[in-house]
Parts: sequence; C-alpha cells; structure tokens
Amino acid sequence: MKTVAIVGVGLIGGSFALALRAAGFAGKIIGVSSPDAVRAAIERGIIDEALPLADAAAQADLIYLARPIEGILSVLDDLDAYVKPGTLITDAGSTKEAICARATEKIHRARFVGGHPMAGKEARGAAEAEASLFRGRPYILTSPSAELEARIASFGARIVIMSAEQHDVLVAFTSHLPQLISTALAASIGTEPEAARVAGPAAMDLTRLAMSPYEIWRDIFATNATNIDAALSVFIAKLEHLRSALSNAQLEREFENAAAAARLLRNMENP
Amino acid sequence: MKTVAIVGVGLIGGSFALALRAAGFAGKIIGVSSPDAVRAAIERGIIDEALPLADAAAQADLIYLARPIEGILSVLDDLDAYVKPGTLITDAGSTKEAICARATEKIHRARFVGGHPMAGKEARGAAEAEASLFRGRPYILTSPSAELEARIASFGARIVIMSAEQHDVLVAFTSHLPQLISTALAASIGTEPEAARVAGPAAMDLTRLAMSPYEIWRDIFATNATNIDAALSVFIAKLEHLRSALSNAQLEREFENAAAAARLLRNMENP
Repeated sequence: MKTVAIVGVGLIGGSFALALRAAGFAGKIIGVSSPDAVRAAIERGIIDEALPLADAAAQADLIYLARPIEGILSVLDDLDAYVKPGTLITDAGSTKEAICARATEKIHRARFVGGHPMAGKEARGAAEAEASLFRGRPYILTSPSAELEARIASFGARIVIMSAEQHDVLVAFTSHLPQLISTALAASIGTEPEAARVAGPAAMDLTRLAMSPYEIWRDIFATNATNIDAALSVFIAKLEHLRSALSNAQLEREFENAAAAARLLRNMENP
Repeated sequence: MKTVAIVGVGLIGGSFALALRAAGFAGKIIGVSSPDAVRAAIERGIIDEALPLADAAAQADLIYLARPIEGILSVLDDLDAYVKPGTLITDAGSTKEAICARATEKIHRARFVGGHPMAGKEARGAAEAEASLFRGRPYILTSPSAELEARIASFGARIVIMSAEQHDVLVAFTSHLPQLISTALAASIGTEPEAARVAGPAAMDLTRLAMSPYEIWRDIFATNATNIDAALSVFIAKLEHLRSALSNAQLEREFENAAAAARLLRNMENP
C-alpha cells in the first residue's frame, strides 16, 4: 500500500491519516476535502497534498470515505469510474446498510468493506484530529479484510466484524437512542427555568450529547429510522415499566438487572 | 462553633468533616455511625471520636445528618430531646420536603436548615470521602443561615437557597429523571446481547448511573414520587415528539432548542 486517499479530512478522516503515520505508514496521503479542511490538514501535516476526487482515486491503493453519510453515498455514485482496478475502498459512516447497499450497486472495479469506528469527540474538524482517537475503541467492519484489519489493529482499535444489518440494529440502541434521550432530557430540563441552579454531575453527563450538531444526525436518522423507532419502543416500555414500579419492591430487581447490563457493557469494552 | 456531630459518616458525612478541617475548623468532630464506618473514619482521621446519638447531640453546636433519607427522618424523630438548646441541625438528604416537614414537626429546641450538596461519586463510604467533594458544586439550603452559609462557602461550594418544594421539583428533572433514564437505557441495551461489541462513549456515559445501588434510590422515590412522575411525563412526551419528528425538518429545531438548554446548564454550572 503506497498511496492512501482520505475523502473528507475532518476529525475521523484526519485521525485515520494521523493513526496511519503513527503506525509507520510511509507512503503518500492525499486529501479530498473542502478548501478550509485541506488548508487545516496540510498545516498540521495530516495530508501530503490535496487533489480532486478523480485524481486522488486514480492513484490510491486505499480510499477512506469519511464524509457524512449522504456525502459517502454521493461519492459512491461516482467513484467506480475513477479507481485503480482492485483498489480497496472503506468508509467511516455511522450507519452501514444504506452505504453497503449503494457500494454493492455501484462499485464493480474495486473492493468495498464498510467500516465504522466507534470513536469521536465533541469538537470536530481536522484541527481536532488525533492519532490515538481509535485506541481501545470498537471498530466495526462489515466483512473480513486481512489488509484493513492489520492497519486498524495497528491503531490499537478493537476490530469487530458483523453484517451491516446487525450493526444498524445495535447502534440504534447504543448510539442513536442515547442521542435522542439526551436531546429529550435537555429539552425536559429546559422546561424548568431554575433547573440549572441545582444541576449536578448526573444532569451534566446525560445532556452532553444534546449539544451534538443536527447535521451529523440528520443522515443517521434518515438511514436508520426503522431500527431507531424499534429501539425507542423498547426504551419507552422499559421507562414506563420503571414508572409503574416506582413505589413497589419490583423496582429493586429492575435496578439490579440494569446494573448488570451496564457492567456487561464495560467488561466487554475493556476485555 | 466548637463541636460538630456527623450522623452517618459515609462519603458525604466524611467529606463534610474533611472539608471543615481543610477550611480550618479546629474544634472536635464526633461521629455517630455504624461500627465499621466509625473504624474507617477514625483510621483516616475524619472524626476525633465516636459516640451514641444522645451523647454526641448533647455536646454539638452543629449536627450534620448524612444518613439516607429514611435514616434522617428517624433521627429527627428522636433528636429534639438530646440537643443543646439553640444548636444548629442540617442534613444532606437527597429530597427535602419530607425531611423539612418532619423537622418542623419534631424539632423545637434547635434550629433546622435543610441541605443538599449536589456532589457525589460512584464509590461510597468514609474511605472515599474527600475534602474537595463539594468544590464548584451547588449546595442547596432550604433557608438562609449566615453561620452555615459561611462554612459551606469555605468549601468552595456554590450556595443556592430555595424552598424544599422547589428543590424537589427541580431535582426530579436534574437527578431522579437521569437515574431512571440511565436504568431504562441499560435495560434496553441489555435486550440486545451483542450490543456490548459496538458500545462507544455515548452508551458508556449514559449507562454509568445505572450502576447506582438501589438502596440509595428507594428512599428518594418514596419521598418524591409525584414530582418524578410529572418529570417522566414531560420527558416521555419530548421523546415521543422527537420520534414523530424523526423524518422531518422540525427535528432540526428540536436539536437546536435542546442544545441551547444543555449549554445553559453548563454556563450556570461554571458561572
């Protein structure tokens, strides 16, 4: 692998490039991005040069698509004509079914493996990129790929291989539901104008996601609406069950079961 | 103020004692607690001696009630007979209406000011106590008290004075609702056995509270059920509204409003 093209040099794309370098990649990294993103990325030494998509794809042995979901879908519409035959394409989109379906439909001259690093932070953009962003975090791939797995393992990420369909069901619970809950909680607390006077760590932890920008989420909701709706139904039923148990002994068992589920998440996070 | 009695020398009671010392209090600190708690507190130098409630109350100029709510209610039933006339009693219970009502009913020879430090951490017990636990956090008092306010201000806490009734409405939103949400989310994620494979920071942040022990919450639910039920109704309505807006442009405004509410919480937290 001599040349990598990063399409969308923001937090994730920029961090992928930095992680490649930190793991010893000595080839060329080309950025395909907006003029502002390209400038920030070149200043920080994240990319070696910037090119239009067609020119970057023509040289690249690995193409990393790190735009928002709609941007990835639109690049997939055009990319097949530009690629070197047999090149490897992967992405970092937050939902996988729509993207993998589009790739199956449109990409014929290259190999496509869907990807989703479960990493991020509140701030965005290439200026916030860091080589260690993926360390210790799950990195989902929708099919095995020895080449890609070796690279990602070198970042310290934990590789998880599962179908696009299963991925989208699970992240509806672990990522999209938390976002909607945080948004609804912040809005609920906002109905009490004096609430900020008493807000402690719990309110802070649970409303942090509510500050996420909508533009990231629009595409996620558009491409995973059915799974999110199902996860919301499970959650609201659980909450109504707790509400009905507020004043009886049943609630103790609910707390114990939920605590066990929360601990299980953590054991699996740090195996 | 020469002698302070701490009734319940756990995380909060122990931290109150350590914060007093750190702020220069040179008098005697007496602990009233279980044998295990007393041993841990004496080993760490948190209290000078341990006494039964009646003997401690007879000496104390300030009595700090830091048991769980039911424990505070039960101490208030007995305490009036033991106190030095005119002594100051305060508490650290998580709900205030039931406790302040009990104090009004039972305490006649001393002054009572309800209190609630919005501080804590996952671990419990005197072994976890720290002098800085209250620093930068809201500390609610149900009525003004120059003496108590001066002490609490010396811990670096942010004093907030509000009625017991308003306190209980607001913490239903900022503390009790987050707890139930976290419990329901952990239980929901627990319905998907493979979810831990993809759980990222969002799932971790929002399920942390789900590991809280039920025994702390039982008394909170028992003494604030009406307000919690009302807060749950507001939250579920907000969440259903988001669900119905998942695929339309209205959702952008909901995200903006919730983000503004979340930012307001933070500005008020760090004034």
